[in-house]
Amino acid sequence: MPRSIVTLTTDFGTAQPYAAMMKGVILQRAPGTEVIDLTHDIPAWQPELAGFWLQHCQPWFPSGTVHLAVVDPGVGTARRLLAAEFGDQVVIAPDNGLLGALIARYPRTRVREVALDALGGLLPARRSETFHGRDIFAPIAGEMAAGRLSVIGLGDTTEDYVRGGFTLPEVREGVIHGQVVLADRWGNLVTNVEAPRPAAEGSLKLRLAGRELPITRISYAGLPEGQPGALINALGLVEIAVNQGSAAELLDAGPGMGVEILGAEIPAPRPMRPGGPGGRPGGRPASATGEASGRPGAAGQGRP
Amino acid sequence: MPRSIVTLTTDFGTAQPYAAMMKGVILQRAPGTEVIDLTHDIPAWQPELAGFWLQHCQPWFPSGTVHLAVVDPGVGTARRLLAAEFGDQVVIAPDNGLLGALIARYPRTRVREVALDALGGLLPARRSETFHGRDIFAPIAGEMAAGRLSVIGLGDTTEDYVRGGFTLPEVREGVIHGQVVLADRWGNLVTNVEAPRPAAEGSLKLRLAGRELPITRISYAGLPEGQPGALINALGLVEIAVNQGSAAELLDAGPGMGVEILGAEIPAPRPMRPGGPGGRPGGRPASATGEASGRPGAAGQGRP
Amino acid sequence: MPRSIVTLTTDFGTAQPYAAMMKGVILQRAPGTEVIDLTHDIPAWQPELAGFWLQHCQPWFPSGTVHLAVVDPGVGTARRLLAAEFGDQVVIAPDNGLLGALIARYPRTRVREVALDALGGLLPARRSETFHGRDIFAPIAGEMAAGRLSVIGLGDTTEDYVRGGFTLPEVREGVIHGQVVLADRWGNLVTNVEAPRPAAEGSLKLRLAGRELPITRISYAGLPEGQPGALINALGLVEIAVNQGSAAELLDAGPGMGVEILGAEIPAPRPMRPGGPGGRPGGRPASATGEASGRPGAAGQGRP
Repeated sequence: MPRSIVTLTTDFGTAQPYAAMMKGVILQRAPGTEVIDLTHDIPAWQPELAGFWLQHCQPWFPSGTVHLAVVDPGVGTARRLLAAEFGDQVVIAPDNGLLGALIARYPRTRVREVALDALGGLLPARRSETFHGRDIFAPIAGEMAAGRLSVIGLGDTTEDYVRGGFTLPEVREGVIHGQVVLADRWGNLVTNVEAPRPAAEGSLKLRLAGRELPITRISYAGLPEGQPGALINALGLVEIAVNQGSAAELLDAGPGMGVEILGAEIPAPRPMRPGGPGGRPGGRPASATGEASGRPGAAGQGRP
Repeated sequence: MPRSIVTLTTDFGTAQPYAAMMKGVILQRAPGTEVIDLTHDIPAWQPELAGFWLQHCQPWFPSGTVHLAVVDPGVGTARRLLAAEFGDQVVIAPDNGLLGALIARYPRTRVREVALDALGGLLPARRSETFHGRDIFAPIAGEMAAGRLSVIGLGDTTEDYVRGGFTLPEVREGVIHGQVVLADRWGNLVTNVEAPRPAAEGSLKLRLAGRELPITRISYAGLPEGQPGALINALGLVEIAVNQGSAAELLDAGPGMGVEILGAEIPAPRPMRPGGPGGRPGGRPASATGEASGRPGAAGQGRP
Repeated sequence: MPRSIVTLTTDFGTAQPYAAMMKGVILQRAPGTEVIDLTHDIPAWQPELAGFWLQHCQPWFPSGTVHLAVVDPGVGTARRLLAAEFGDQVVIAPDNGLLGALIARYPRTRVREVALDALGGLLPARRSETFHGRDIFAPIAGEMAAGRLSVIGLGDTTEDYVRGGFTLPEVREGVIHGQVVLADRWGNLVTNVEAPRPAAEGSLKLRLAGRELPITRISYAGLPEGQPGALINALGLVEIAVNQGSAAELLDAGPGMGVEILGAEIPAPRPMRPGGPGGRPGGRPASATGEASGRPGAAGQGRP
């Protein structure tokens, strides 16, 4: 039997061993489980960023992986716990919008409300009000990793949950309006706009803070030195970067800032529906604005 | 055979691969061992904080886990190496007070002095004077994980070691005097005071820097916004927190600062003896001041 | 069959889950592989530091380990991919000097140019131009870990690659001229000078920024308090340290700064050739300037 895999995405940081406690609990229940850290550095109280990364990591993990997302400012309140099925992978997260954009992107996703009462004896009898990661998420993952609990056993499907998450890009008068989602370690500005299809060769442009940049498919090293450029990154998203420099610093830009994409082909027959019928949970994501070009891992696309 | 588990707690940071070298050594001797990082971000030269975290992590790890604690400013001197047994788990640490509070808390803990000479051929013949983590701790853990070395083989029991560690709270005239042990990533102030039992309903209060806060059992989200509150956290300890804010910033407070707990029931028959007969190594810790309420993982308690 | 081991050394940081994506890809292809992080905090665009750490970590890892080094500012350009064999371990890295000093140190190292075309069906058909870690390095490591790809299958040997890396120390008029390679978490200044053999007892001295320090073999705690000292560290390198203090701060010194070693025995018969015939890939490194004393892990040497 292959070893089960559980991933952790939290805002715990790594200075205190909170994530390690979760690993201990999982390993007590399911010896031999491989527990992989996605990141513990989600900014505090930004569950939507956890959802963003789960969306972009999930395609690269094996079947059966259980993902725990614990960015949970409402822990201990009446907020519910959700389990979303992506193919045969499961993401368990609080009902606070963390899964919002992810589900909007893959509308066929089945979402369940975790029925804590029904799980009964599988959970510790006494649980803290402030660390459900250790006392609820980890025990559930351990039981699932050990094969004693299936996703169906977690609870009934539901349509009633917090949508939230990052706003998806909108198309208005032929222009795609998106936003900067994060600045990475190199100062690259990652947006929420999936690789658009150019209306004509070389027509794609990005507007940010009064600047207009052509969107290319070249690598970082292909950008002119010291100048910002826009490209399609390895997540299949539009990104602003500087060759061996920081776009965030150079442009004094960061998360939340709006971007506009010009010169994109806007599918006419079915108006752009981000996360529309093309959404394929469990598979490599297809682009809402251009199936062929929007797939991460596609040739001609773009270092993390 | 289930895979052996070794945990690492150090002040190495993660920018340099010192912890990875230890993992390599362990895996050379015991292929397949699961090596779990508790944290590598213990502030330099604060072994007592490593002991604090080991105390609070150990209950969540499986039987047989070997914990290595390498916060060791005296490496290369005559300072000895200790092995403390917590149930069927072992913590290996330098004799510098790292284990002090942990042993005081669980007075039945058996402590051994690691007899490096007697371990003879199991250790590398040539060892550095500055990285015992790689050259002594890791080889020992590897041999134990591989089943070739037992805790008894490490050396004889001893009563003669550095006690130190965080001062345990003291009771004076009906008031529990404790201290802030750490500020976590969210700015929560964790104290060393285990969940006290209220003398009367709602009687518990915490005094810090001239402020007086009621101690509740509610979650973070249950605290009034922008106001500090005191609660029992998921470690079973009194903690000062701000709902979606930083108590450390708001109160300009940090580690070492004194706190007073008022309105606690002080057990009369046997004057409060933190870590007294109630200490149960290897099990979930019971509170010295209130068995029923002081257990981490208990209902009505408190995110990391 | 023992579990395969793959290590990761990158400049990705851990705030974004890029390394986790690589782990997912590896585990998809080779379930059960143990993936060990060396570090993800290599300063951006400093591949030579990745090579430095691989040199010093590799001796501590088991046979068959595959090391991936992804510090790759030229990703997506025509820069090639190299595979260097150290005994029966393999390091896969971009051809940008990352492996330079490592190969200079062990001149018998066999280097192959990874033939991406010939790997054909083993790699994903569509690959990004900006994240070869996920799309090329990880698939290769996964195939190797699964036993479906051998180092010979990666491509032909080559002598034509970027040498670069840290400059090795030079001997001029009886003085060894080296440099500070990094300041670690404690402010210790690690140089690139391997343990020199003293010309006479106590003759070794280090000159840095106008100061002259005796080079000893004592531990950190053996240094006078508040005073800088020079010692041979656990990597077998000359290091400047302060007992429970920061040498980097005290001396206002950092990476790139020159150091001079005086009073060393300079082997006459064969002029000092760092990485000369003594280089033994796959084994514990021997010192170019003093075989007996230069071996990390040797008694009388020096915390990380």
